[in-house]
Amino acid sequence: MKENYLIAVLTDFGMKDGFVGTMKGVIYGINPLARIVDISHEISPQNLLEASFILKSSVDYFPVNTVFLVVVDPGVGSSRRNIILKTPSFLYVSPDNGVLSRIYREEKEIDIIEITNSAYFLRELSNTFYGRDLFAPVSAHLSLGVDPYLMGNKIHDPVIIPEILPVCHKNKACGDVIYIDRFGNLITSFSKEFFQINDISYEDIRIQIKDKKISNLSRSYSDNPAGSLLAIIGSSNYLEIAVNQGNAGEMLQWKQGDKVYCEWGRSET
Amino acid sequence: MKENYLIAVLTDFGMKDGFVGTMKGVIYGINPLARIVDISHEISPQNLLEASFILKSSVDYFPVNTVFLVVVDPGVGSSRRNIILKTPSFLYVSPDNGVLSRIYREEKEIDIIEITNSAYFLRELSNTFYGRDLFAPVSAHLSLGVDPYLMGNKIHDPVIIPEILPVCHKNKACGDVIYIDRFGNLITSFSKEFFQINDISYEDIRIQIKDKKISNLSRSYSDNPAGSLLAIIGSSNYLEIAVNQGNAGEMLQWKQGDKVYCEWGRSET
Amino acid sequence: MKENYLIAVLTDFGMKDGFVGTMKGVIYGINPLARIVDISHEISPQNLLEASFILKSSVDYFPVNTVFLVVVDPGVGSSRRNIILKTPSFLYVSPDNGVLSRIYREEKEIDIIEITNSAYFLRELSNTFYGRDLFAPVSAHLSLGVDPYLMGNKIHDPVIIPEILPVCHKNKACGDVIYIDRFGNLITSFSKEFFQINDISYEDIRIQIKDKKISNLSRSYSDNPAGSLLAIIGSSNYLEIAVNQGNAGEMLQWKQGDKVYCEWGRSET
Repeated sequence: MKENYLIAVLTDFGMKDGFVGTMKGVIYGINPLARIVDISHEISPQNLLEASFILKSSVDYFPVNTVFLVVVDPGVGSSRRNIILKTPSFLYVSPDNGVLSRIYREEKEIDIIEITNSAYFLRELSNTFYGRDLFAPVSAHLSLGVDPYLMGNKIHDPVIIPEILPVCHKNKACGDVIYIDRFGNLITSFSKEFFQINDISYEDIRIQIKDKKISNLSRSYSDNPAGSLLAIIGSSNYLEIAVNQGNAGEMLQWKQGDKVYCEWGRSET
Repeated sequence: MKENYLIAVLTDFGMKDGFVGTMKGVIYGINPLARIVDISHEISPQNLLEASFILKSSVDYFPVNTVFLVVVDPGVGSSRRNIILKTPSFLYVSPDNGVLSRIYREEKEIDIIEITNSAYFLRELSNTFYGRDLFAPVSAHLSLGVDPYLMGNKIHDPVIIPEILPVCHKNKACGDVIYIDRFGNLITSFSKEFFQINDISYEDIRIQIKDKKISNLSRSYSDNPAGSLLAIIGSSNYLEIAVNQGNAGEMLQWKQGDKVYCEWGRSET
Repeated sequence: MKENYLIAVLTDFGMKDGFVGTMKGVIYGINPLARIVDISHEISPQNLLEASFILKSSVDYFPVNTVFLVVVDPGVGSSRRNIILKTPSFLYVSPDNGVLSRIYREEKEIDIIEITNSAYFLRELSNTFYGRDLFAPVSAHLSLGVDPYLMGNKIHDPVIIPEILPVCHKNKACGDVIYIDRFGNLITSFSKEFFQINDISYEDIRIQIKDKKISNLSRSYSDNPAGSLLAIIGSSNYLEIAVNQGNAGEMLQWKQGDKVYCEWGRSET
């Protein structure tokens, strides 16, 4: 138990109500030397897709053995399970509600453990705040090097949320705006891998969103005049629609779920 | 001076202006090994009741010897006193404006010290930012184990804000919405203890808020269909009005200070 | 390399998207014992003036050797340079876009190093998130005591943003509202030094903003009745227009860039 892992926390708790601070109080009570990083607490309430996207964009940048404490929990107090997901590099602690689906899909050697051993919970378990009473103490114990297999048994049927993938038809595809960031950049469901798998050259992509067309992919925001609309492979490795030094989401009133069309190769019309 | 206590910080400073970061700079300058937890900095400006509620909901989850640095300070620069409140478990550092009233009421062995020893302040004391110039350095010194009695003399007349308690009449009581959290849950002035002291069974409570009636207490949010109104003893041990997977505050346009009625036993009408 | 400096972070990344948490993941991967302080992440997107003001208000309160990681970066991915600014007390890491102008102006012994040594970057450098891929790892290495001169060569022509100074005419001056804080206090371009250099007594200042006049400087907010307009030298050492226990910005609908007039000595009209 000499280890002392980092705990990275992602919730929809906001920063006002003291929920996150309370969880950290619990963690420090168990592991006084914990190092805690906030990934985000501003996930829209109960929005598993947002949480899933932000988590996946962050995890690869954390050191090995980080414990990810992910609490977006619309089903708190119900019979939904509480789980630890173990990969070769990381531990994830979360309700079993699909928020970790992206991790399941992309990792090969995973174990999932249902958390049942109440020795690792707070003495009293409320029905409305498992983040404080179960997930925080479990994460703190894991950060001390406690073996996750002591906390419950393996399961093989976690809840999975299907991935939002572009739909292809010949040399066209229809995708979605999956996230809009603080700068108004519209992140779409077209991943870097999508273009690689379909052998599509970046020089040869035509994008349409509502009545706007973009005829090439930029290398950087600032390759374009200030205020102009552009497309780029963003830092999360997804196709982004952006405005250099502006806010694409506001300018064009697009929103999560709006459709984005890509075409490549010889136009058919 | 081997101790190294946790410092938990609660303010109405917000996250934009750099006030909180500046206080932490001061703390690390005095105690380079400080561990600092943010409880909240989003208290509505100068709202002592909010600060008091969030503080009380959090403190029991922090380890012994935590120093709570609480700066909601409408009277900064006036003649209001600056105090340390010492309980058997914790130290609280704050202006003497009643924000610690809930702590006074519920703790038995307390000492209150007026902070007057400027050896523990920054050299220059502004009239507008005691958080930076006085409360942060005092907290940092306390986190190093400095004896609080070195910082000033005991006082016995702290400012107290009266508690908002339900008003009872026979088998009915009228309470208030005292806080609305991020999820729109309406936290009322009916505490778990209120029901225990009055020997009221959870199965036998009828609640009315405006024109809505709730005829029982739920065990969890998810005992109810999505979108339905419910009442529950929440994680702060107060009666909450909530909507499963929804936002009661928005749905019903209730606000802080709205009235909530409870009735139990045999109805009189 | 025994040193372990504090890293203080200032960005316009917001708290939702996980950008800041990701940067901290990178930092802890390089320096597991890093101590990180958030100054602010709520700078208005790409607003260099706001960032510059908040930075300058904070830095003097941090311990010697703090590394300031400042990422407000409208030109990310362009040919703008990445720099380290070294003063006798601190290291600053930032894009070369003028955000550090206030530091250049007020420090005497400074060195500026263009960051070019990719040994200190992440392996892959995106064109949209230098905060994660370059500025965070460089800061982490500096916090371990790595010599900044190993990271690139000195330059002598950093980008400078001119200071917003009051314009004087005889015994009058016209200044600007340069920042509005959470409490609605209007911080103006009249510094404490302005009054000292011009030998103006605080008792002898008449202030006009739009149709409102203030005929003296207060010592504290609470010297005035609640709700009344006042002027004061604030905690950043600038003239502030405030309302005791109120919000001057909202009450008077003033905004950044509005003009403020000061007059002193014998009135000419």
